[in-house]
Amino acid sequence: MAAVTIIMGSASDEEKVAPCTQVLKSLGIDFYLTVSSAHRTPKRTAEIVAEQEKLGTKVFICAAGMAAHLAGVVASQTLCPVIGVPVASGSLQGLDALFSTVQMPTGFPVATVAIGGAKNAAFLAAQILAINDVALREKLIQKRESMAIEVANIGDELAKKY
Amino acid sequence: MAAVTIIMGSASDEEKVAPCTQVLKSLGIDFYLTVSSAHRTPKRTAEIVAEQEKLGTKVFICAAGMAAHLAGVVASQTLCPVIGVPVASGSLQGLDALFSTVQMPTGFPVATVAIGGAKNAAFLAAQILAINDVALREKLIQKRESMAIEVANIGDELAKKY
Amino acid sequence: MAAVTIIMGSASDEEKVAPCTQVLKSLGIDFYLTVSSAHRTPKRTAEIVAEQEKLGTKVFICAAGMAAHLAGVVASQTLCPVIGVPVASGSLQGLDALFSTVQMPTGFPVATVAIGGAKNAAFLAAQILAINDVALREKLIQKRESMAIEVANIGDELAKKY
Amino acid sequence: MAAVTIIMGSASDEEKVAPCTQVLKSLGIDFYLTVSSAHRTPKRTAEIVAEQEKLGTKVFICAAGMAAHLAGVVASQTLCPVIGVPVASGSLQGLDALFSTVQMPTGFPVATVAIGGAKNAAFLAAQILAINDVALREKLIQKRESMAIEVANIGDELAKKY
Amino acid sequence: MAAVTIIMGSASDEEKVAPCTQVLKSLGIDFYLTVSSAHRTPKRTAEIVAEQEKLGTKVFICAAGMAAHLAGVVASQTLCPVIGVPVASGSLQGLDALFSTVQMPTGFPVATVAIGGAKNAAFLAAQILAINDVALREKLIQKRESMAIEVANIGDELAKKY
Amino acid sequence: MAAVTIIMGSASDEEKVAPCTQVLKSLGIDFYLTVSSAHRTPKRTAEIVAEQEKLGTKVFICAAGMAAHLAGVVASQTLCPVIGVPVASGSLQGLDALFSTVQMPTGFPVATVAIGGAKNAAFLAAQILAINDVALREKLIQKRESMAIEVANIGDELAKKY
Amino acid sequence: MAAVTIIMGSASDEEKVAPCTQVLKSLGIDFYLTVSSAHRTPKRTAEIVAEQEKLGTKVFICAAGMAAHLAGVVASQTLCPVIGVPVASGSLQGLDALFSTVQMPTGFPVATVAIGGAKNAAFLAAQILAINDVALREKLIQKRESMAIEVANIGDELAKKY
Amino acid sequence: MAAVTIIMGSASDEEKVAPCTQVLKSLGIDFYLTVSSAHRTPKRTAEIVAEQEKLGTKVFICAAGMAAHLAGVVASQTLCPVIGVPVASGSLQGLDALFSTVQMPTGFPVATVAIGGAKNAAFLAAQILAINDVALREKLIQKRESMAIEVANIGDELAKKY
Repeated sequence: MAAVTIIMGSASDEEKVAPCTQVLKSLGIDFYLTVSSAHRTPKRTAEIVAEQEKLGTKVFICAAGMAAHLAGVVASQTLCPVIGVPVASGSLQGLDALFSTVQMPTGFPVATVAIGGAKNAAFLAAQILAINDVALREKLIQKRESMAIEVANIGDELAKKY
Repeated sequence: MAAVTIIMGSASDEEKVAPCTQVLKSLGIDFYLTVSSAHRTPKRTAEIVAEQEKLGTKVFICAAGMAAHLAGVVASQTLCPVIGVPVASGSLQGLDALFSTVQMPTGFPVATVAIGGAKNAAFLAAQILAINDVALREKLIQKRESMAIEVANIGDELAKKY
Repeated sequence: MAAVTIIMGSASDEEKVAPCTQVLKSLGIDFYLTVSSAHRTPKRTAEIVAEQEKLGTKVFICAAGMAAHLAGVVASQTLCPVIGVPVASGSLQGLDALFSTVQMPTGFPVATVAIGGAKNAAFLAAQILAINDVALREKLIQKRESMAIEVANIGDELAKKY
Repeated sequence: MAAVTIIMGSASDEEKVAPCTQVLKSLGIDFYLTVSSAHRTPKRTAEIVAEQEKLGTKVFICAAGMAAHLAGVVASQTLCPVIGVPVASGSLQGLDALFSTVQMPTGFPVATVAIGGAKNAAFLAAQILAINDVALREKLIQKRESMAIEVANIGDELAKKY
Repeated sequence: MAAVTIIMGSASDEEKVAPCTQVLKSLGIDFYLTVSSAHRTPKRTAEIVAEQEKLGTKVFICAAGMAAHLAGVVASQTLCPVIGVPVASGSLQGLDALFSTVQMPTGFPVATVAIGGAKNAAFLAAQILAINDVALREKLIQKRESMAIEVANIGDELAKKY
Repeated sequence: MAAVTIIMGSASDEEKVAPCTQVLKSLGIDFYLTVSSAHRTPKRTAEIVAEQEKLGTKVFICAAGMAAHLAGVVASQTLCPVIGVPVASGSLQGLDALFSTVQMPTGFPVATVAIGGAKNAAFLAAQILAINDVALREKLIQKRESMAIEVANIGDELAKKY
Repeated sequence: MAAVTIIMGSASDEEKVAPCTQVLKSLGIDFYLTVSSAHRTPKRTAEIVAEQEKLGTKVFICAAGMAAHLAGVVASQTLCPVIGVPVASGSLQGLDALFSTVQMPTGFPVATVAIGGAKNAAFLAAQILAINDVALREKLIQKRESMAIEVANIGDELAKKY
Repeated sequence: MAAVTIIMGSASDEEKVAPCTQVLKSLGIDFYLTVSSAHRTPKRTAEIVAEQEKLGTKVFICAAGMAAHLAGVVASQTLCPVIGVPVASGSLQGLDALFSTVQMPTGFPVATVAIGGAKNAAFLAAQILAINDVALREKLIQKRESMAIEVANIGDELAKKY
């Protein structure tokens, strides 16, 4: 059972989405990842959403660039929270994807993270799942602690260096 | 038979879309106008596209604001040319709608006109239909001529005034 | 017990945040709403987060304008999902608030909705809570259905009008 | 007879316009391609438009960068639909070309595609021509199907990989 | 003989262009003002440029909004310096007009002033004419002096007030 | 002796600069306020800077709109810290003033506050002066405390209301 | 005698300004080129302006990046037309320089060309000088003709190639 | 005793912050540099601010990218002037960091310098400290003089070269 379903709009986004899967793995969260386009494969997209929801997915993560309709289209087909990752591609460097992802109409929110924020999509999914998963919550606490220690160590080293 | 189908994403856009219908009427082009949302009524949108296409629609005009997915979603469901009108609404004043409408992926173009360019959507639809409609072409030529005369008259008046 | 805690950065945002509370009420979701600033009252903000989390809050909604640090600051102090509402205020009309809210660093995501998207913050919170609340999920389904019917009715009316 | 005439504003845009010709060739659409500038060769531009229209061109595709006036200037000289491709060049990375191409005044629409969207200009031209060309329409359907299959295959592969 | 020819792209810009004429009058510079559109009346535009140049115009001022091609089109038809005034109209508030006016290709510069800078277009035209007109130059010096005195007086008053 | 000198680029900015003087008065900081333009009165600007510096000014506050050169020009003529207030005026709503004020070259920083941030310019000046003024520092602490209490009170009231 | 004085704000802009000098040389226009900063060397800038004006300069060209105050500062010290070249440097890629150069207040216009438009600054200067220089005008006509021929040749070649 | 405390939000910003330390060293100003994140290590950040203030820091310099909350968070915890350096990182190239740093609410100003303006942060800190440090002021005067001489020398050389 995959608690999280990751859909990227184009296989060319794989490299940018991969960090998301690393975070999920490190937190022990099962996920299903595939490619499906809002425009090139609208039926496939709808089927994946329905199927994964039936299989137990609780959160969707959608990553797309340019006129990034994917997260919105998925949001229109499920009541699971949909996390949108605007991907920087093309001349507008993700500003188009950000606007297309975040500016959703009433009733169909997309929980948008930073342009290229694939890792944070995973963290957000984990935080949502952790509401009802004490063990996962504990892992997130440890992640934050180790991040804090890392910052402190590097900070202390730099303080000596300068 | 409606050669042109106009879909607006929200009834609140009616005032901004109305100028489009005036141009079509003045050119004697039949149209079908309705409201359907890419997100709130995805099925309705798909059905309208299929139905109107069957009924003879040759060009779609889609007007939507903010994360304006409507034109793109329609484009994914028809091979008729889809004209997108980005509507200015909300804080970003249509820049979000412009990016969401124009930055479409390969294979699914949206013929985008100016933000708030409802009239030009009608003119563009007419020009597309006029490829195979000599009478319509003639009307468009006359429109342009009368526009040119109007500019010249006003220009000549102003030249005297100053 | 308030499942959702809403914090606005300034009392002047009340009017813009109020629609959020209406949605929550209509869905029967208890909430706690207050004002606390990331900068003017950092301690108060931290205390509210800790206290409300202890009292059972599962999702935070933070609304702020300009250099909107509130959602990020709250996100740094809780593992509950934090939804950020960029508020349009001042000359940059919310683009500053959008960037300040969405562009968070790794590990501390803010689930960002549209500029002025207070209602969608409520819907997103509801969708997150509905993962483990079948009754709430049912209410959301009904909301969507009534929204769809409303669109269809208005669309059909307009189709007759033109 | 060239059903489509492609004009680029500068020979330096050739590489960016070439993908457009590949799509047209793959669909069996005859085209005429040349270079002509709105500013450096206004007369040449007018002559090409008039000549190609007489020779049977039904759709113009204009690609230009910076203050991209080419599509607008062509649109003022023909009633054929004019498709504009904003080309990214210089510091503003195509945002200037997008605004200069899409924000046309009433009566003179340019059917604008994405920045760098040369391929989509070809697809849009094909969709316009396909209104009255069943065989071409069939080819476009096949293109879409093969695109969908490609996405599904890659998606299924990735689903296994992760 | 009009040393300066002012062309506005639309009669609706008259109010925004009028301040330009006031400055020219106050400096005793003869001007010719008219309306002509780059798109609606390309021939008229070309004829006005040719005619006014023959009649002695030395500088052109072109004011237009949105995809403001007027100044560029005029610049392609004369070797007189062309001053472009981007007019704020529509959703993008003149940013589109600024980009369309200033980002001209090599060989065809438009001397662009601020968005809505009709007065400065007049001052710039005057400075260009003053290169060979000592009396005009004297008037400009006096203008500057009276502007400076006005600032100083208001500044001194305010210094007392606070 | 005025510890702070406020220069606005145009008398039309008075209303936007006034809040700055209120803050300074409430903190008991003497100030000198005047109007002087970087372009219309460059000499006056230089003289005011030199004179006020001699009279004991320690911090300059410069408020200007559009191509806001004032703060930069003052910064080139004094070693006192110069605080820049970008004023929103004209079509670009202060984004032009922000860029013109903040993007200074190496060696000539302008301490830039928010667009329209006249009050914060006063607070920043006060914080700079408070480095060597314990009494002023105490007043600032009290200001912050009363701001915090105000937020807490309003927040508690709103918490009851909803 | 240098009819044109070119001032760049930083020696690091030399490469970007050099194309300007090539155009001037090719047109036989004498120029004086130097470096002077609005902020680092305000006195030097004022002296150069005064001196070159005395020596016969008729047009100034100023090239600067970031908060590009140079053209505006020069414009405040001369009645010669000042051409501003916004230079792309730093993160904002010249948008800051464009705004800082073009958005000048009433009475002090800067004739702004495209970001990085050094060549066009030279052409604009030449067009201004050509108002009273028939020989120079003739050279400009020839330049335009050779540019047009070059476009036509390349265009015709490409037409054969595809 | 470190008169200046530099905090960078991420160790990855070291290279961009280093120029700041070089300027401080060249002016003989003691500084403390470390890494601390507004979100990953909020406690550490608060402790560093309190500790360094106790140890005599008079000015804080904070450098951060994306949703750069660091300077604002520090500003909420000290009455020392806080200088913010927006760091360009990610797709928005520092525009997000600029808005997040400069658009602070009333009472909590951040003295913002240019995107990537680490050197100017040091100069601004020095100018603030120089208010009460005649020797430092003298060093700054010499710096400016040597900068001016350098510009003049390069300018004179270039004048000969062209």
